[in-house]
Amino acid sequence: MPTQFDPPSGTRDFLAAEWETREHAFERIRSVFARYGFEPLVTPAFERLDVLLGKYGDDGDKLIFKILRRGEHEGTGEADLALRYDHTVPLARVAAAYGSQLPTPYKRYAIGPVWRADRPGHGRYREFAQCDLDTLGTSSAMADAEVICAVHDVLGELGLRGFRFLLNSRRVLAGLLEAFGVPADLGPGVLITLDKLDKLAPAEVITELAGRGLAEAQAAPLVGALTAGDAAEQIRDALKNSDEGAAGLDEVDTLLSLLAGQVPGDRVVFAPRLVRGLSYYTGPIWEVAAEGGAGSLAGGGRYDHLIALLGGPDVPATGGSLGMERILLLLPRPDTGRTMLDVAVTVMDEHAARSFAFAAAARDAGLRASVYLGNSRKLGRQLKWASDSGARWALIYGNNEEEAGAVTVRDMTTGEQASVPLGGLPGYLAELAAG
Amino acid sequence: MPTQFDPPSGTRDFLAAEWETREHAFERIRSVFARYGFEPLVTPAFERLDVLLGKYGDDGDKLIFKILRRGEHEGTGEADLALRYDHTVPLARVAAAYGSQLPTPYKRYAIGPVWRADRPGHGRYREFAQCDLDTLGTSSAMADAEVICAVHDVLGELGLRGFRFLLNSRRVLAGLLEAFGVPADLGPGVLITLDKLDKLAPAEVITELAGRGLAEAQAAPLVGALTAGDAAEQIRDALKNSDEGAAGLDEVDTLLSLLAGQVPGDRVVFAPRLVRGLSYYTGPIWEVAAEGGAGSLAGGGRYDHLIALLGGPDVPATGGSLGMERILLLLPRPDTGRTMLDVAVTVMDEHAARSFAFAAAARDAGLRASVYLGNSRKLGRQLKWASDSGARWALIYGNNEEEAGAVTVRDMTTGEQASVPLGGLPGYLAELAAG
Repeated sequence: MPTQFDPPSGTRDFLAAEWETREHAFERIRSVFARYGFEPLVTPAFERLDVLLGKYGDDGDKLIFKILRRGEHEGTGEADLALRYDHTVPLARVAAAYGSQLPTPYKRYAIGPVWRADRPGHGRYREFAQCDLDTLGTSSAMADAEVICAVHDVLGELGLRGFRFLLNSRRVLAGLLEAFGVPADLGPGVLITLDKLDKLAPAEVITELAGRGLAEAQAAPLVGALTAGDAAEQIRDALKNSDEGAAGLDEVDTLLSLLAGQVPGDRVVFAPRLVRGLSYYTGPIWEVAAEGGAGSLAGGGRYDHLIALLGGPDVPATGGSLGMERILLLLPRPDTGRTMLDVAVTVMDEHAARSFAFAAAARDAGLRASVYLGNSRKLGRQLKWASDSGARWALIYGNNEEEAGAVTVRDMTTGEQASVPLGGLPGYLAELAAG
Repeated sequence: MPTQFDPPSGTRDFLAAEWETREHAFERIRSVFARYGFEPLVTPAFERLDVLLGKYGDDGDKLIFKILRRGEHEGTGEADLALRYDHTVPLARVAAAYGSQLPTPYKRYAIGPVWRADRPGHGRYREFAQCDLDTLGTSSAMADAEVICAVHDVLGELGLRGFRFLLNSRRVLAGLLEAFGVPADLGPGVLITLDKLDKLAPAEVITELAGRGLAEAQAAPLVGALTAGDAAEQIRDALKNSDEGAAGLDEVDTLLSLLAGQVPGDRVVFAPRLVRGLSYYTGPIWEVAAEGGAGSLAGGGRYDHLIALLGGPDVPATGGSLGMERILLLLPRPDTGRTMLDVAVTVMDEHAARSFAFAAAARDAGLRASVYLGNSRKLGRQLKWASDSGARWALIYGNNEEEAGAVTVRDMTTGEQASVPLGGLPGYLAELAAG
């Protein structure tokens, strides 16, 4: 593709086959969410800049696409609007704006593009689809479990196999820090380092913890327990003496008991070293790990004060997000047998209007149909078009057909032809459509 | 709604009911287009600024939302990207980029938001949906007729009545100027004024034409012929001596003959005074007028050199655009009887896991279902939620039900209750789902 006609860096043109694959996946996701009673929310592509700024940290702020002021203010070089960076800040704004007009709890999903000025790379785009579902206004563990179940059903509905839900609670992590004697002020930094246990060797993690000021004598037992073969048991044991830790374990166990029966037992596991980087989580957290290290397919958790921090009302909230671009990569490639047409209608000049009517009749029968729109009046050329367009049948009407008062229906697969009297064509097409 | 939580000026939040109404309409439109063999194309929300600038005239350029450069370049106050202003310029870019990888002809539709920094007003937004279909690469009149038929089918599929296709050709207009002796250099201006015959009285139009330098002696017969009761006949007569005019009439008549049978005769008319402001049309032009002066619902025509002007290959092209926001206003309001749930499941603490499983069973039966997520353990409160959420049935499971080994299924409309043994619940739910 000549560079000057590329879409902007990090964005994509979706031609028919790829778009339909995506749309088909989104459609299935919507149907699962609807079955759970989640409702759609669609917010504008841009928000006022002040609504977004300061909500994603300094690094996030730099990735926001800002829109220049217009008219006489354009010359100032200032921005007043910005492209949506995620679906959560708009949700907080909507919760503030509509208040009691929204159902309680408010269960909504959002599927649509967000924009981030990240450096584009393999599977990383500047315009990409996010798919969120969130429940606002309830602290019930059933709301957390419901989100997890819905995500599980979505992955199943999309035909994905070989994934596992990792379950933890921020309160388990707090209890862990307490039980292993980590000074409170080191806590957040220690968690950030523990989050790297998937990528770094235990010894490396211990070294990094030392750099954060945690003595190796304290770090080693903590890392040892988290990486042991029976880590879950060791942690359960260690948390017995921490109120916070026990409360966290209780959250995890409640979730596990609600999920039993809905999510197969081998697909959900207590993962005490799951941290999830975002500091705003307050309770249960979870992630979906794909087999073979393809990374995380989805993640979420409870974030009881975030909506207020983002400018909304102070309501408890829980939710999750599907890594759509990663998930879409795992889905089967678009069907190469895909076609745009069922019926191709050839056109001879003097019979053009009749051919046009044949195509309409085929559409009335529920078939996808088009007349030949090119310049050639040669039948062979037109049949090549019919074949290229993947049509199952071609309708041919020329002078011979006019004389016979019939249309020739050619099966493009077998080459067999039938002569169908004009009056019988609608019925014949209906039979073709019925298969 | 408190002002600070409004969406940005000229944009809208779509909550569930309104979004579903829109999405339902879009879905029906897509299915009509697919029946005609048009394929979807989805381009990024933004393009490189130079792709858009200069394509919409000076006034259009001012309405483009420009995106500030990022990182170290942000301080320059310069823009390098801009939000999509329509679907046509991106189509031209895609035609240039993908060339022969696209089918010939390339029949594509685009449905999605575009952004214009227009002054917001009644029915006028800064983020609004456009719905285009276009055929590139053929000069066949059947392509023009196909677009018109597809738009006609879309309006019918959406349940609209009382609209009429006005048909004309730019070549008819050219012939008209010739036949009525309008000097060539006055032509474009005269057409702009003639386009106002719907809003202004004939005398006012004649005055405006005089202001453009067209003598009243020439203007009066022209305006007279266009506004006569038998305008179509008068114009047909006047065009007999103009080659260009005769060719234009031939285009119109070819279209009328192709449309006969597909579009009822009283829904399509030769409208010699239809101009359509845009200067890039080269052949047939058309518009859909709504009854009662609700304005134009759709419009389009042939624009054989525009794609090249916009940076694409020089291919003949024809297409149309639906005025989605106006059309959506004419559709029935969202169904107020709409609900999010079929089945509401009450929750008593000790039986929470069981209730959770009941909701899953209802979903397995194809019903939309949710457990109660609030804090109250009072049945009355929970049944009020079931009623508020519009559920048809409530499932109740408490100590009595546990003892009986059965779940109570309450018909929320009649208040009737049935006791369904646990083992029989899936079958019972399947029967409810089957209606």
